[in-house]
Amino acid sequence: MRVELVNTGTELLLGDTVNTNAAWIGQRLAALGIQVARQTIVPDGAVIRVAIAEAAQRSDVVLVSGGLGPTNDDLTRESMAELLSLNLDLDEGVVTQLQEYFAKRGRKMSESNKRQAMVPRGALVLTNHFGTAPGLYFPAELGAELGWNCHFFLLPGPPREMKPMVENEVETRLREWLPDGASRRVLYLKVTGVGESDIVEAVEKELEAVEGLDLGYCIRNADVDVRLAGSQSAVDAGAAIVRGALGDCIVSEDRRIIEEILVELLAQRGEWLATAESCTGGTIASRITDVSGSSRVFGHGWVTYANEAKQQQLGVPADLIETHGAVSEEVARAMAEGALKNSGADHALAVTGVAGPTGGTPEKPVGTVWIALATKGAETWAVKRFSPGARDRFKLLTSQAALEMLRRRLCGIALRR
Amino acid sequence: MRVELVNTGTELLLGDTVNTNAAWIGQRLAALGIQVARQTIVPDGAVIRVAIAEAAQRSDVVLVSGGLGPTNDDLTRESMAELLSLNLDLDEGVVTQLQEYFAKRGRKMSESNKRQAMVPRGALVLTNHFGTAPGLYFPAELGAELGWNCHFFLLPGPPREMKPMVENEVETRLREWLPDGASRRVLYLKVTGVGESDIVEAVEKELEAVEGLDLGYCIRNADVDVRLAGSQSAVDAGAAIVRGALGDCIVSEDRRIIEEILVELLAQRGEWLATAESCTGGTIASRITDVSGSSRVFGHGWVTYANEAKQQQLGVPADLIETHGAVSEEVARAMAEGALKNSGADHALAVTGVAGPTGGTPEKPVGTVWIALATKGAETWAVKRFSPGARDRFKLLTSQAALEMLRRRLCGIALRR
Repeated sequence: MRVELVNTGTELLLGDTVNTNAAWIGQRLAALGIQVARQTIVPDGAVIRVAIAEAAQRSDVVLVSGGLGPTNDDLTRESMAELLSLNLDLDEGVVTQLQEYFAKRGRKMSESNKRQAMVPRGALVLTNHFGTAPGLYFPAELGAELGWNCHFFLLPGPPREMKPMVENEVETRLREWLPDGASRRVLYLKVTGVGESDIVEAVEKELEAVEGLDLGYCIRNADVDVRLAGSQSAVDAGAAIVRGALGDCIVSEDRRIIEEILVELLAQRGEWLATAESCTGGTIASRITDVSGSSRVFGHGWVTYANEAKQQQLGVPADLIETHGAVSEEVARAMAEGALKNSGADHALAVTGVAGPTGGTPEKPVGTVWIALATKGAETWAVKRFSPGARDRFKLLTSQAALEMLRRRLCGIALRR
Repeated sequence: MRVELVNTGTELLLGDTVNTNAAWIGQRLAALGIQVARQTIVPDGAVIRVAIAEAAQRSDVVLVSGGLGPTNDDLTRESMAELLSLNLDLDEGVVTQLQEYFAKRGRKMSESNKRQAMVPRGALVLTNHFGTAPGLYFPAELGAELGWNCHFFLLPGPPREMKPMVENEVETRLREWLPDGASRRVLYLKVTGVGESDIVEAVEKELEAVEGLDLGYCIRNADVDVRLAGSQSAVDAGAAIVRGALGDCIVSEDRRIIEEILVELLAQRGEWLATAESCTGGTIASRITDVSGSSRVFGHGWVTYANEAKQQQLGVPADLIETHGAVSEEVARAMAEGALKNSGADHALAVTGVAGPTGGTPEKPVGTVWIALATKGAETWAVKRFSPGARDRFKLLTSQAALEMLRRRLCGIALRR
């Protein structure tokens, strides 16, 4: 099945908006086994008609997003009607939906929104539950006279309106049309602490031998999502291979990120986490508190950027810093143990390192970091990591390594050195 | 001048990579007064030739990115040579550059990299200072026999290699070709604390009256960049209008973000900042420490998520929390003043609020937050803000509002209520 994407929006061409819609749709279709054959991005206005016609000649399905709004720039609906020589009728059902949409929000529908209720004859309305622009589906018959054999979906541009419509309306139909659509499964195994090339080396050869298995790798911040798609049995076989090779590095199999997993694990045990951060400057605490409900497991955090703060707030002895330096195993351990004591938490993560770009020495170059995890009634873990590179990347990778230490402790997996 | 973009890369179509290159190039060209006419994204492989030929027929300039690597999938160079019937010659200069590139990194050049030194006859090599794939420029004459009048630039896909090449090689030539290219200026005024629609209302009418001024708005995290482009006098006139209407909300005129400005301002004064965060959970500290050199101005931060932490670490009286609630002006002030005292810093920012999605009450709904700024020898400021919405957005907007309070204090601008 050949699928193309046409996006309209001057803001995409000016670079004022990054085209995340295209990536999201690409991922959804990849999970169905479809690789988008081409994306075309054109400005708002009449040129949309040209782009749609070109795509229709080459494709079985064309997804068009954007240009369904109420303003004069929004010409996708009219362009499609013109292309397929369809009259536009006012759809009273859509008018009612729009009126209800505005009434719910205590606003009155403006006259210009009525344009959004004009439906090309023969097209099906796709209800938009999150905005005013209804989607439209044009069955392939409508273009038969032009020699096309192509289904069209017109989708709203805003992601929160587009996404549920793709999931509920587009994917359902694509599954019907695909020979293996109904039985097709997809699984994402989120792997952390292992680089993409090492993952490839560990599993690719075996995975490629599984018949009917589509394989993809997607780098998401500090993780790699291994995407397995195909029949249930192919996905199961693939998952067994990945679990066998990388099992203790798999954070989740449902796309949840490590901070979500940690908050859940801690909450299940009724345990608390504290943080003591130097070079990550609050990133670990910020990531944990990104998770709704984190207040049940996280109460105390310190950002002890200055040595004086490490001493005052965490009780790190001044002579320890003097003897070993602030970036040392000894200081990382003392920070974690101080945070554990001062917070009364069950676990405390501590990091101290050289984020750069300045501050490096031959013994401790930029990127050097010590991470420690203190846990009530258990030995304190400490590891050295080295992540040279940009500051934001250093903070991301270091915070990830710290969170991963805690995950290993909570899951009873040995520390990775 | 009609410019089109052609991106190659299966990872873009699968959604494994978001196409930030297209947005970045769009912005750079918009600053020159050029709106990209179309973007086309095609997979790695032979179809690139079709896409380039289609774009060439419609355009004066085509920028092609991706497909210049050393593997068999990387076919852009060969496709262009084939399209324009050019022989490929091994360029000894490029071979030397590649050898030096690898030698510097202590690695040996592999045989496959030699492909990257093959140059279509008549094309100019654009040196890649950040990677192995050299860029290529094909002057319009090379396509004259095909009836085209189109310049081609082949650019590497990785952003850190592509960006400097666009700035140094592509833009220089575009400026030469544009009638107003040499005299064209661009200015970005970064505005914070004012929504895009309010900015439009405040300045757009006046700005549109300035002859020859191109205007754009670009939302960047919590800020809006107002982009003014045109002749020096048009940009000056536009800037005067924006400064007049929004002067005290302009963070920078050189694209620097507020955390960079704050670190610079504090460092100039030799002053220190401390943070005491509840609902933002370390985001303010993390943003400040994203800036290189922040250790000169930031030493102590607290993430007092639990009430107990607010009492223990910051000395907030328990009865204050009991009487007014943790999310209150009184507690925000006490947190800021406690952080100031315990850190010995010159300024301390504190926030306490309801990030949601749970924890809201009718009096203090989700999104309610109090922000306080204590400064040595000055009155403590406190403001209430309301940012309902997703948790990450809440943290971003709240941390932004806190940083903006500090900017106003350091710049001697009155607090915005």
